[in-house]
Amino acid sequence: MSGSIEIKPIGIIHSNYKKKEDIPIQPRFSKSIGEIEVFKEFEDGLKDIEGFSHITVLFHFHKSKKELLHGKPFLDKEIHGVFAIRHPDRPNHIGISTLKLIRRKDNILEVSGLDILDGTPLIDIKPYVPLFDKIKNVKIGWLGDKI
Amino acid sequence: MSGSIEIKPIGIIHSNYKKKEDIPIQPRFSKSIGEIEVFKEFEDGLKDIEGFSHITVLFHFHKSKKELLHGKPFLDKEIHGVFAIRHPDRPNHIGISTLKLIRRKDNILEVSGLDILDGTPLIDIKPYVPLFDKIKNVKIGWLGDKI
Repeated sequence: MSGSIEIKPIGIIHSNYKKKEDIPIQPRFSKSIGEIEVFKEFEDGLKDIEGFSHITVLFHFHKSKKELLHGKPFLDKEIHGVFAIRHPDRPNHIGISTLKLIRRKDNILEVSGLDILDGTPLIDIKPYVPLFDKIKNVKIGWLGDKI
Repeated sequence: MSGSIEIKPIGIIHSNYKKKEDIPIQPRFSKSIGEIEVFKEFEDGLKDIEGFSHITVLFHFHKSKKELLHGKPFLDKEIHGVFAIRHPDRPNHIGISTLKLIRRKDNILEVSGLDILDGTPLIDIKPYVPLFDKIKNVKIGWLGDKI
């Protein structure tokens, strides 16, 4: 097995969710507005981000200490494999969310649709591009009759 | 600034792309079929994944050694901030792609739409769920007149 990979926080996510229990299940269920603070040393990387209405952020599930292979999602009573759910307790504690970008002020991005704990370390930001990210003819397995 | 975060490969991505130059720009431009090998110790985490037609994989841009804040994407002649493009040379070398899941054989997922270099370390798999991931009324900044 290959060696470990080191990554570093490039910012901090500020939200209204101070506890795990407060967090909505996914951004689509959230109208919460918050701020993504990109550390000053990475601010130059935001050039032209304001042209995008949505961004996909990668972040560290910093409160998750467990690495589980199964879990019970919020939307179901059944146990599923961790790669068939989005639960934080997974082998690598990385989350992804696509958020609406409201405005940029220097190194701060005001966003809506947040489902992320206050103080969460930011790992990456990628532009959301429907041609790449929007998929047709989708099956959603166990979730099919839950949403 | 917060400390570093350690993550580990949970598998290997097998594709037809042996060199960076061979890789299509994004999965939507690729019909390439390949295999995602999840290491045996994580195989249990795949339970119920076969119900999903698409998966989002996180992987390590293991051939990228540079951490740049600007870059010129394949689709443009202009320089943009690294967070407004998807180039591998970024502060954290993590890529994401949404792929079509053709079938599962034990710990092997056969997928299509690959835009990933052969031998790339796999970091995570998440189910693709349109309600969460498909966004309406999108603006795509500098990419608007390129695609």
